[in-house]
Amino acid sequence: MLLAKSTWIEIKTYLEKSSTIVIPIGSNEQHGPTGLLGTDWMCPEIIANEAERQADLLVAPTFNIGMAQHHLGFPGTISLRPSTFIAAICDWSRSLALHGFEHLYFLNGHGGNVATIEAAFSELYAEASFGGRGRGFACKLVNWWDLEGVGELSGRLFPTGHGMHATPSEIAITQWAYPESIKSASYRPRVAATGPVREALDFRQRYPDGRMGSDPAQASPDKGESLVSVAATSLTADVAQFAAESERHESQF
Amino acid sequence: MLLAKSTWIEIKTYLEKSSTIVIPIGSNEQHGPTGLLGTDWMCPEIIANEAERQADLLVAPTFNIGMAQHHLGFPGTISLRPSTFIAAICDWSRSLALHGFEHLYFLNGHGGNVATIEAAFSELYAEASFGGRGRGFACKLVNWWDLEGVGELSGRLFPTGHGMHATPSEIAITQWAYPESIKSASYRPRVAATGPVREALDFRQRYPDGRMGSDPAQASPDKGESLVSVAATSLTADVAQFAAESERHESQF
Amino acid sequence: MLLAKSTWIEIKTYLEKSSTIVIPIGSNEQHGPTGLLGTDWMCPEIIANEAERQADLLVAPTFNIGMAQHHLGFPGTISLRPSTFIAAICDWSRSLALHGFEHLYFLNGHGGNVATIEAAFSELYAEASFGGRGRGFACKLVNWWDLEGVGELSGRLFPTGHGMHATPSEIAITQWAYPESIKSASYRPRVAATGPVREALDFRQRYPDGRMGSDPAQASPDKGESLVSVAATSLTADVAQFAAESERHESQF
Amino acid sequence: MLLAKSTWIEIKTYLEKSSTIVIPIGSNEQHGPTGLLGTDWMCPEIIANEAERQADLLVAPTFNIGMAQHHLGFPGTISLRPSTFIAAICDWSRSLALHGFEHLYFLNGHGGNVATIEAAFSELYAEASFGGRGRGFACKLVNWWDLEGVGELSGRLFPTGHGMHATPSEIAITQWAYPESIKSASYRPRVAATGPVREALDFRQRYPDGRMGSDPAQASPDKGESLVSVAATSLTADVAQFAAESERHESQF
Amino acid sequence: MLLAKSTWIEIKTYLEKSSTIVIPIGSNEQHGPTGLLGTDWMCPEIIANEAERQADLLVAPTFNIGMAQHHLGFPGTISLRPSTFIAAICDWSRSLALHGFEHLYFLNGHGGNVATIEAAFSELYAEASFGGRGRGFACKLVNWWDLEGVGELSGRLFPTGHGMHATPSEIAITQWAYPESIKSASYRPRVAATGPVREALDFRQRYPDGRMGSDPAQASPDKGESLVSVAATSLTADVAQFAAESERHESQF
Amino acid sequence: MLLAKSTWIEIKTYLEKSSTIVIPIGSNEQHGPTGLLGTDWMCPEIIANEAERQADLLVAPTFNIGMAQHHLGFPGTISLRPSTFIAAICDWSRSLALHGFEHLYFLNGHGGNVATIEAAFSELYAEASFGGRGRGFACKLVNWWDLEGVGELSGRLFPTGHGMHATPSEIAITQWAYPESIKSASYRPRVAATGPVREALDFRQRYPDGRMGSDPAQASPDKGESLVSVAATSLTADVAQFAAESERHESQF
Repeated sequence: MLLAKSTWIEIKTYLEKSSTIVIPIGSNEQHGPTGLLGTDWMCPEIIANEAERQADLLVAPTFNIGMAQHHLGFPGTISLRPSTFIAAICDWSRSLALHGFEHLYFLNGHGGNVATIEAAFSELYAEASFGGRGRGFACKLVNWWDLEGVGELSGRLFPTGHGMHATPSEIAITQWAYPESIKSASYRPRVAATGPVREALDFRQRYPDGRMGSDPAQASPDKGESLVSVAATSLTADVAQFAAESERHESQF
Repeated sequence: MLLAKSTWIEIKTYLEKSSTIVIPIGSNEQHGPTGLLGTDWMCPEIIANEAERQADLLVAPTFNIGMAQHHLGFPGTISLRPSTFIAAICDWSRSLALHGFEHLYFLNGHGGNVATIEAAFSELYAEASFGGRGRGFACKLVNWWDLEGVGELSGRLFPTGHGMHATPSEIAITQWAYPESIKSASYRPRVAATGPVREALDFRQRYPDGRMGSDPAQASPDKGESLVSVAATSLTADVAQFAAESERHESQF
Repeated sequence: MLLAKSTWIEIKTYLEKSSTIVIPIGSNEQHGPTGLLGTDWMCPEIIANEAERQADLLVAPTFNIGMAQHHLGFPGTISLRPSTFIAAICDWSRSLALHGFEHLYFLNGHGGNVATIEAAFSELYAEASFGGRGRGFACKLVNWWDLEGVGELSGRLFPTGHGMHATPSEIAITQWAYPESIKSASYRPRVAATGPVREALDFRQRYPDGRMGSDPAQASPDKGESLVSVAATSLTADVAQFAAESERHESQF
Repeated sequence: MLLAKSTWIEIKTYLEKSSTIVIPIGSNEQHGPTGLLGTDWMCPEIIANEAERQADLLVAPTFNIGMAQHHLGFPGTISLRPSTFIAAICDWSRSLALHGFEHLYFLNGHGGNVATIEAAFSELYAEASFGGRGRGFACKLVNWWDLEGVGELSGRLFPTGHGMHATPSEIAITQWAYPESIKSASYRPRVAATGPVREALDFRQRYPDGRMGSDPAQASPDKGESLVSVAATSLTADVAQFAAESERHESQF
Repeated sequence: MLLAKSTWIEIKTYLEKSSTIVIPIGSNEQHGPTGLLGTDWMCPEIIANEAERQADLLVAPTFNIGMAQHHLGFPGTISLRPSTFIAAICDWSRSLALHGFEHLYFLNGHGGNVATIEAAFSELYAEASFGGRGRGFACKLVNWWDLEGVGELSGRLFPTGHGMHATPSEIAITQWAYPESIKSASYRPRVAATGPVREALDFRQRYPDGRMGSDPAQASPDKGESLVSVAATSLTADVAQFAAESERHESQF
Repeated sequence: MLLAKSTWIEIKTYLEKSSTIVIPIGSNEQHGPTGLLGTDWMCPEIIANEAERQADLLVAPTFNIGMAQHHLGFPGTISLRPSTFIAAICDWSRSLALHGFEHLYFLNGHGGNVATIEAAFSELYAEASFGGRGRGFACKLVNWWDLEGVGELSGRLFPTGHGMHATPSEIAITQWAYPESIKSASYRPRVAATGPVREALDFRQRYPDGRMGSDPAQASPDKGESLVSVAATSLTADVAQFAAESERHESQF
């Protein structure tokens, strides 16, 4: 069930049986010479939509712009500052909590988002504890590449040159979903360099074509398909487990 | 050209010939018993994508959550507070301006967004004037229903019962784009009441099924198609005119 | 009744019979070569004070600095950023709501304020809905030139050259109220140019003497007097109608 | 010269000879059973306007709502939170600095404002030091009762029962300026109690009629007149001295 | 009792008998050629710890970075902006209030902190009044040099050259506490100049070695010892008096 | 070299040879029935001070209050909200950067701080990239337990019952540094439960005595000593490596 394609009455009915929702969250930023700028929000959206086709999940609209300050040296990157990102995550979550959603599952597609999303959870938890929302309200952040079985499959498909940014895994997923948008380039070096992530000018100088440690030439739509398949299955299971925590206790102290 | 499906190198090339970008912006909120929650961000996205198929436009990812506090009494609505919305619009715009985009055209799908988007423009303009960005940087907000020819066509298609919220026009557009998600209900009264917009509890009491002044039963996919067609053509022309303002002057004072 | 010239005990007594208050709100900004910098806060103050002389209205102190970023290229303009303006409107309104004021009527004198004031209302409504203030709390924004009969009279007095900024209407009103401060200049061109409103440097270049579309030479104190007279009468009626909405319902959902 | 009654061209001319401006700043809050709610912004406005009649001073519009959280237990009080107050003072000051004002003299009428205004100065100074505005920009805060000769005169006029809030001095000043708004009441006790200032509920319980340590029955319009006369003369001298600091140095380190 | 060296169970027990806590608060900033950068947070910490050794006080961790924007022209100074400082003081205080602390006694070591700390109290009081915390919650700010007997002793020890910044009193206190960190220099002039405090570049130019009006050469560890001894005794008495206010009333209005 | 015990002239001299500084950062929060509330800021302070005794390091004052919202259910915990924590880290860092510090090494003692500190780095990096601070400015976050050799030693000392909160490692370190503050209790169960970290009420219910997975009874001062020794040595080496990155490049794009 896709929230954006539902009516408010359908969501009201859904809430009678479940208080769990999956929110794809990512970033829009450079992904090397061939990766799509939308890669990091497309991947969790693709995986969540695939899971939704197979199971009884509710999927929110995609949160498509995240924290990508360090990529701003490359045209097309759009980033929120961490403070804005926190405010927006909190507003999304407060809106959902108001309707009765108590289990917010963020499926993330961008490593650079992790710290800020977790900071936002702390703001939300502080409100929940002391602003009357009470025990039972829970947020969970899972990167799609950490879903069960995904890392193992990536390791098998791309034993070398997986890297950390513009990885063949993420590019394969977008190739499967958007085959009309497959790009090509000759990569030099074949496997990009790695190193620390600092501010944007430093980033661009260290990683001139935008990749970090990756060889995206290995990506293909069918590898993307198998990654999506494993991820969607694991997502369904993980969301079910999170939803099962759901019994609401009154706090005892 | 869709930014999210482009590489950073393609955007770099685009910027050599144009500094204009179209940003679909809307809201995710109740649209009566049959309208999709995503109606207000889907409509500008649908129209912008249609225009992009026909002309040389660059379209950003869709800004899908806006200012819908007054709809929060209905499940499924997600809203930013105005202050968060301003911060996020500014961060999107600053990111784009950093790459050299000087003409940001926001195609809006939600009346409730207008005030806050214009407030955000003022924040951006203040920075542009005195923070060194200088003359030439311009933002423009256009509601899709204000594009040339659209209001006239709506008036012809729906001479009565168009209303202000959950209108047959917007519902027709989503029906054309997502025919698998067409919903039905019996509306009572056929044409919904109208009145002022106040806080969310008041809104829900005044407008119990979420519609304002509208009779969405008149919507159909083919009416949606003709609205999209007119809107996309007008959008292309209006963006071209905005882009033509673009010659950069040095300020004289 | 002027709040600033009342004691707290008089306000306490007033609140026993009414929960409505009128707040003149404007801006302090250039108004062409002859308009006073205070024009936009003086006009609503003048009109509200005139109405107060005739009817049982409570008028708050004037909110005299608003959103005039685009006028900052002209000496003497003072502006709040939209985010500050929102915060300040909310603080004024929360203070008043705390005492029991439930109908806040903002009489506005500056077009550039509209978007931000409405954004502030949304922040206030969100609090009212979900922070316990409940149904019944209402804010209303009315520009003095939109009061019944005012536009028609302006049209009759100034059939050409009314324009949008430094209009003969607003200048006539301040001439009537402050005859000792009437200024003169030779206007070139007689009727100023019009065009879009962008950032401040652009504004100053497009509108070098600060007027937009207006011919202020037509203003005179007696025209101001008739405008104030019509506006004050309409204000009294409009406030009475707003106050009559006042019966407080308990929310039903 | 009153800024609000000037044109932008007059201010431009003024700036050629002076970079100094006086900003009356106060608060709108309860002042006991007979004091006007506007007392604290009226007093500095009255004194500044009197000085302006006698000397070549530029006076800004009055900043009429300040920090009066502790008075919010009394109807009619309007207060900014300190954080909003800081933001607004900074926006006023940045606007003025943009035009070339380098000496901002705040004439204050409310003790509760002092801390927050000084905090705002620190924000402004930090910008001035490191944001390019450079040396020479200076803010000064003076309470009207601290102007030379005023305290001595108050002591002579009201040897007992002057107190700290709703003092006979400030009430006398408003009586002189607004004789039509003189109120009376029988005060019990004649001289109000004193004590600490805490939060608003505590304040109201400690000081049930709103006075602190004062006996306002001693106020009279002619005493007000002599206070205004001394204050206006001292203000003129103090502003002249502040303006004389004005030579701009390039920083040496 | 030092909070940081206690367990949560010990604090729980303490709260059964007292709701009072002492928070040393200062700044880290230049103190002339021989004063330690930490002087202003060390002094209140030293005095509070000394008092804690003698009496039953609870002392919080030291708030060591305050508002020192005007000292930022000197290497080693670390400052919060006033807005950050307010937010942080409020978070500390809300945390303590949550546990039941109702009497927060801030022992301050830096004059530049005073305005911002008092602004923060107003934010806290506004919450206390209207956010349900209710009457009884109180904050108190005391500069260590204002504790009973301290000013008199300083006057006797340093009849000339005490000054306002990098005073022999504060330097003597750190000399007593940290004799291994006593520094020396030849001061030129022996007694530093005085004048106003403006932005940081101006400050550095006016006070090139960082002192204001002081002759720190007079400091010695034994003078520090006697100052600490008087201050600690007075602190104990003053805190006891503040704690005794503590009976909680229900508000009557 | 301890910054707080240095003069500004000593820091100026230090900056001529190095742009690196170590900032101990932690939290003040419950650590089970026997752990000190200050454990998480004491540990990095103890380790940094030990390293400073052995090598030429500059150590800043300790940032002692961090993000511990989830511990607020236990008396004595003091926490910043993430948004405040970000603002404060940024202000500390901007102050240091202003003096020429380009390598800020945060030695962290609290897992709950990590996300927010990294979010703060992104805010700082965004400023550095586009606000003129330029390439070369770098922040690094290292948890003391991740310093080379520390995890291995902890594993050897506490093969079972190390856990995640109120670990025997951190308690041992404070026991070594503050032997007079060693507490004891009988732990039930001996090894505490583990599970997820959610909001504060949930946390307290899941972990009723405040421990997570740990058996602090194993701690002893001599184990603490060996941990500090290894950590201090590794810190010195790691800081040296970070400082060596220091050559400043002009950005090439």
